[in-house]
Amino acid sequence: MPDRMRLVAFCPDRPGIVAAVSRFLFEAEANIISLDQFSSDPDQDGTFFLRMEFTLQDGDGLSERFGPEIAEQFEMSWTITSAMRPKRIAVLASREDHCLHELLWRWRRDELAGDLVLVASNHPDHREAVERTGLPYHYVPVAGADGKAAAEARLLELLRDSCDVVVLARYMQILSPGFLQQLALPVINIHHSFLPAFVGADPYRQAKARGVKLIGATAHYVTDELDAGPIIEQDVIRVGHDYDVATLTRLGADIERTVLVRAVRWHCEDRVLRHGNSTVVF
Amino acid sequence: MPDRMRLVAFCPDRPGIVAAVSRFLFEAEANIISLDQFSSDPDQDGTFFLRMEFTLQDGDGLSERFGPEIAEQFEMSWTITSAMRPKRIAVLASREDHCLHELLWRWRRDELAGDLVLVASNHPDHREAVERTGLPYHYVPVAGADGKAAAEARLLELLRDSCDVVVLARYMQILSPGFLQQLALPVINIHHSFLPAFVGADPYRQAKARGVKLIGATAHYVTDELDAGPIIEQDVIRVGHDYDVATLTRLGADIERTVLVRAVRWHCEDRVLRHGNSTVVF
Amino acid sequence: MPDRMRLVAFCPDRPGIVAAVSRFLFEAEANIISLDQFSSDPDQDGTFFLRMEFTLQDGDGLSERFGPEIAEQFEMSWTITSAMRPKRIAVLASREDHCLHELLWRWRRDELAGDLVLVASNHPDHREAVERTGLPYHYVPVAGADGKAAAEARLLELLRDSCDVVVLARYMQILSPGFLQQLALPVINIHHSFLPAFVGADPYRQAKARGVKLIGATAHYVTDELDAGPIIEQDVIRVGHDYDVATLTRLGADIERTVLVRAVRWHCEDRVLRHGNSTVVF
Amino acid sequence: MPDRMRLVAFCPDRPGIVAAVSRFLFEAEANIISLDQFSSDPDQDGTFFLRMEFTLQDGDGLSERFGPEIAEQFEMSWTITSAMRPKRIAVLASREDHCLHELLWRWRRDELAGDLVLVASNHPDHREAVERTGLPYHYVPVAGADGKAAAEARLLELLRDSCDVVVLARYMQILSPGFLQQLALPVINIHHSFLPAFVGADPYRQAKARGVKLIGATAHYVTDELDAGPIIEQDVIRVGHDYDVATLTRLGADIERTVLVRAVRWHCEDRVLRHGNSTVVF
Repeated sequence: MPDRMRLVAFCPDRPGIVAAVSRFLFEAEANIISLDQFSSDPDQDGTFFLRMEFTLQDGDGLSERFGPEIAEQFEMSWTITSAMRPKRIAVLASREDHCLHELLWRWRRDELAGDLVLVASNHPDHREAVERTGLPYHYVPVAGADGKAAAEARLLELLRDSCDVVVLARYMQILSPGFLQQLALPVINIHHSFLPAFVGADPYRQAKARGVKLIGATAHYVTDELDAGPIIEQDVIRVGHDYDVATLTRLGADIERTVLVRAVRWHCEDRVLRHGNSTVVF
Repeated sequence: MPDRMRLVAFCPDRPGIVAAVSRFLFEAEANIISLDQFSSDPDQDGTFFLRMEFTLQDGDGLSERFGPEIAEQFEMSWTITSAMRPKRIAVLASREDHCLHELLWRWRRDELAGDLVLVASNHPDHREAVERTGLPYHYVPVAGADGKAAAEARLLELLRDSCDVVVLARYMQILSPGFLQQLALPVINIHHSFLPAFVGADPYRQAKARGVKLIGATAHYVTDELDAGPIIEQDVIRVGHDYDVATLTRLGADIERTVLVRAVRWHCEDRVLRHGNSTVVF
Repeated sequence: MPDRMRLVAFCPDRPGIVAAVSRFLFEAEANIISLDQFSSDPDQDGTFFLRMEFTLQDGDGLSERFGPEIAEQFEMSWTITSAMRPKRIAVLASREDHCLHELLWRWRRDELAGDLVLVASNHPDHREAVERTGLPYHYVPVAGADGKAAAEARLLELLRDSCDVVVLARYMQILSPGFLQQLALPVINIHHSFLPAFVGADPYRQAKARGVKLIGATAHYVTDELDAGPIIEQDVIRVGHDYDVATLTRLGADIERTVLVRAVRWHCEDRVLRHGNSTVVF
Repeated sequence: MPDRMRLVAFCPDRPGIVAAVSRFLFEAEANIISLDQFSSDPDQDGTFFLRMEFTLQDGDGLSERFGPEIAEQFEMSWTITSAMRPKRIAVLASREDHCLHELLWRWRRDELAGDLVLVASNHPDHREAVERTGLPYHYVPVAGADGKAAAEARLLELLRDSCDVVVLARYMQILSPGFLQQLALPVINIHHSFLPAFVGADPYRQAKARGVKLIGATAHYVTDELDAGPIIEQDVIRVGHDYDVATLTRLGADIERTVLVRAVRWHCEDRVLRHGNSTVVF
């Protein structure tokens, strides 16, 4: 059975990139299934972005040859991955469980395009629900004077080498810059508002006070700056003056689940290219 | 032919308000067409809001009697208006004309629920298009050392006594607190972003830089604080990484037109009750 | 603690209904929380619809008095129910389990506004997932010459007297008119298309063949005529030419869950008034 | 200044198409701006669709060479067009003018990606509004025993050779198969419902009677079979039980304008590929 592979790349824009890459794949006897490309404004930074999916009888050696034969001449940043080796996802959660359950549910239905490998939480409550699915559940409390540092050290042990992406499913602890640097993995967060409106805590209460007519949720990569990393996906829902904070929270939870799952799925399908502080989503 | 009237009121919430008001109207031989009410959270300020539409063979004296017979005992703020006397709308515009044209178009189709009475602008360009519809066009330039004060004085002359509501159809001059106070009329603005994200200038450029996945528009009442008045209506449209600022601006213009017209129509139908810094929209 | 109650009523439209009802409630010392009313076109059938929520220290005798004191003079069809006694919901499912799981999930989070009391299915597969929540699971196969009649007889036994509403969560058996008549309970179905487009089987395949740009789902009350009962709620999602039937089915499942849960919740909150072949949803 | 061109093509799917086409363009010193491709299900008809936009210093001879060098070996149907030569659009309208005005408005703002060249109508009413924009207005009544045949003959005279696409902006006459065959141009219609629901006349009345919760509009290419041609674009808007047919018609008109303009713009940008009875929209 042929392998299904994905090339994701970006480089300074110039003529001939598509021709060179598609010829390389044709000569390797690959069959292109989809091709998405985008060139950012040449007056700004003029970057070319590419995602190709293709099948191949025998992918051996393809990655080794792509670098010297193609990528170097175009100064390309790139990865070639196999859709046969789904990304390993670790989930961090706190008390609220709607995003965690959505991820478990999508995984069971094989709709994540990735594999859950572990759940860690600063709350003990979700152990039974998680272990029932066969996943390990790690209770990593954050407590005491040294709590945060100790918890982050424990999380580093758990996450490094065991996963390809970390998903914060309403994990309410702020991760330190040092932790993120040592982790060196993409971290996806769901923020319960339409960023950049209502940064920080209690956004539904903020939204109610401001009288907005739509509430939203934003999935983004985590960076050192709180709630300011590259946005992957957003969505909103219409609300009325007669919705109290509890109703906003309930409806918001639905949007959070939807938006987070889309972001995780797209990340696992290698559809999201980070570039500066924004993303290209193919 | 019977008159079609609207009662809009709010007061401290307590039992018996609907019973008293509906009995008053029944005894006046009014026929209730619609009734909307809302009670805000009793733990907060516990305010009761009411809007009723009704028909009446002879509305004479109804307003005179409503005060002493009903409103006083409930400490009610209220108005009774006739749908037969549509609100008079003045429009202020600057160079961009899409919101102005949308208002002209809706007025011609009798879809504003109000009557345009004049257009004023700090640009001379729209005279022909406006005068062709039969409306007066006032060119009120803002120029020179004394420009803003002189322009506001001229606008006050034009607007006071001639209209019931002022619509800023992408009018790019900031109105001074003194002007707003002397005008003493509701002023509706369209802001080209999903407030409170991207307050201030050039929101589509801000949105592009932040990489948001939705752009929006917000219609709100103007207050002394820039872009912070009570929100009447908002809407958004999905955008992609490949939309440049020009495309965002074009799509944004469509949302602006839609949102502004809804807000103006609802205002003219007495559907929007201001309360603190938010609105109840029935 | 005061009881929270709901009056739902409709009758021929005429002046004085709101006044009479609200005075009745005021004199019973009820505190009105919300009031929704609607009058259908007087040139058609001129019907008045009403829903009121109110609290009351002591609801004893209220229903007994409402009939003779109010309902009779207005020829009103009406019910008064207590929000303290949530409706009992029975769920029928077949092989597909996404709607069943959504209902279980919402019930656990107390978001249905009703109580699940049993699940019955013509497939044995969901027993473990259902029984784990504490609900009884009834396997009612439809097989053999007499299968349908026997299954319906068994379902009648299970459902009559045990529930207030039956939800077909992708139950793929067509219920006979005789069954519906004997059941004499509201039955809510989720149809996996935007009715009246794509009535009948395999709507996602039909939608793909027709090249539609949106797919939807419709929740409706079941009547003798297939897929033609009164619509409670509908929603759609945008789809592209590159979505295969499997993707349409996956996205469609999400819309089905959302639409069905809204319909069930609204029904349990007494928000849905059937009238002829359509509904008023307050 | 370089020319901006578009290649649109489809052919039986097989490896090497992208490589061959992109190499051809690279060697012609074209600079690819965007590339969209799609392969339909290989188990069905396995067709490959391609749209490329590129700039070129000198496009002379490119089309002549593309046939023998590329298209023939892949059995490709294809066109190469210049974005510098916008498509010429003829508009047919009847009494309702909201779609006509939307097209005039978009054209004035240069948002159609094509050029209006004439308006023809079976009503005389829109002459002034159309001629004011500088466009010719042709009154082509349909009356008498021979009315339809005479009108179609007159329309053929007007349209053939003068335009590239015909837009039916709520033109209420059904065009005969013979007319369409002789015209031999793409014809875009706006149907005021979400097809395939509510085919035929008076869809808002049908929608009201059926109690649907969303109403929509559909832009499609016209074929011999009424309301059944390939769909280009659709959209919907949420409606309530309290919207009368007049309100549905007003809101529907807004959706019609939006959907029709998107379809016309996409057609003029060569984004819509017809295939069987559906479309690929890049």
